Amino acid sequence: MKVYGDKLSGNCYKILLISSFLDKKIEWIDVDVLKGESRTSEFLKKNPNGKIPVLELDDGRTLSESNAIINYLSEDSDLMPTDKFEKYKTQQWQFFEQYSHEPFIAVARYINKYLGIPSDRKTEYESKQAGGHKALKVMEEQLARTPFLIGTSITVADISLYAYTHVAPEGGFDLESYPFVLRWIKLIEKTPGYIKMS
Amino acid sequence: MKVYGDKLSGNCYKILLISSFLDKKIEWIDVDVLKGESRTSEFLKKNPNGKIPVLELDDGRTLSESNAIINYLSEDSDLMPTDKFEKYKTQQWQFFEQYSHEPFIAVARYINKYLGIPSDRKTEYESKQAGGHKALKVMEEQLARTPFLIGTSITVADISLYAYTHVAPEGGFDLESYPFVLRWIKLIEKTPGYIKMS
Repeated sequence: MKVYGDKLSGNCYKILLISSFLDKKIEWIDVDVLKGESRTSEFLKKNPNGKIPVLELDDGRTLSESNAIINYLSEDSDLMPTDKFEKYKTQQWQFFEQYSHEPFIAVARYINKYLGIPSDRKTEYESKQAGGHKALKVMEEQLARTPFLIGTSITVADISLYAYTHVAPEGGFDLESYPFVLRWIKLIEKTPGYIKMS
Repeated sequence: MKVYGDKLSGNCYKILLISSFLDKKIEWIDVDVLKGESRTSEFLKKNPNGKIPVLELDDGRTLSESNAIINYLSEDSDLMPTDKFEKYKTQQWQFFEQYSHEPFIAVARYINKYLGIPSDRKTEYESKQAGGHKALKVMEEQLARTPFLIGTSITVADISLYAYTHVAPEGGFDLESYPFVLRWIKLIEKTPGYIKMS
C-alpha cells in the first residue's frame, strides 16, 4: 500500500499515526501541495478532488478522505469498536471533525503557522476563533465524562480529533481552559506506538 | 427510534429518504433551528454541538451527524456495500460531501432560498459558486463511468450526495452542464421507495 501525502498536514498525520499504532507498513510518497503536485493530471486520476491524503492499494485502486482511509486501515483492529452503536459514534466524531472542527482549528493554524497571518487574511483568522472554541467545548464536555471520546479505550475517533487538536495552540487556541482535552492529549501520547507529528 | 430534525434541511432529508427506502419506522420530532430550538439546554443534552438531525434510540442514547445516522440505519441492508473497499468508498464520498460539497452548495442555496441573498451576504454567496462547481465536476467524472457513485446499485453514498445536489439550482448551480449528474438524479428518483424533499 502507498500513501500520497504531506507529513506536515494533520489529515495526513492521522494515517502515519494509525499505521504506527497498528504496526502496518505503508510506502509514503510526498506530495507538495504548494508546488501544485496535487493538481497534476496524474494525481487527479488518483483523487479527482485534488486533495491529500490518498491511499493506493497494490491493485491501483485509490481511496481518499483521511477519515475513510483510517477507518479502512483499522477495520477489525482494537481501534475500531465492535459494538454497533459505538462504531457509528466514531463516525459521528469524524464527521464533526471535518465539518465543525477542522475548518476552524486547522485553517486558523494554517493562516498563522504557514502564512504568518497576512493582513488580507486577518479577518478570516479572527472569524475562525469562535467556531474553534465551540468545537473544543463539545470535546471537553465528552472528555469530562470519559477518558477517550468513545469510552475507556482509544479508537479511530480519538486519532481523527487528536491530529489538529493537539496543535490547536498554533491556531491561537489556548488549551489551558480545556483540562479534560489536555488529559486526553496526554493519554494518547502515552499509548504504545504513538509517534509525533513532523 | 426518534429523529429530531427539520424536514426542509437536506441533512435531515437524508434520514427521511433512507427510512423510506428501507421501510423503517421512525418518530419525527420537528426542531425549528431559526427559533433556537436546537440551542435549548434540553436539546444540547442530545447533541452538544447544537445541530440537527439527531437520532435517539429507545434507550435514550443519541447519535448525531446525518451521514453517521444513515450509515447506522443502513447497516446490513442493500444500501451498504458488503465489499470492504466499496464500503469505505461510500465513506470517502460522505466525507467529501461534508467538506467539499455541502459548505458550498447547501450554504449558497440557504443564502438564496431562505435569505434572498441579502446585500451583506452577496460576496459570500458568490464565493460559494466555484467550490460548488468543483464538487459537481468531481461527481460528474465518477457518474460518467458508473450510474451510481459506487457502481451499478444505489448506496448510502448516493443518498448523502443526492440530498443537496438535486436542489443545487436553488443555490445558483445550473445542472445542465452535468448530464451524468442529471442521469443519476433521475435514477435515484425512479428507485422504489423514493420520496420527495419537503
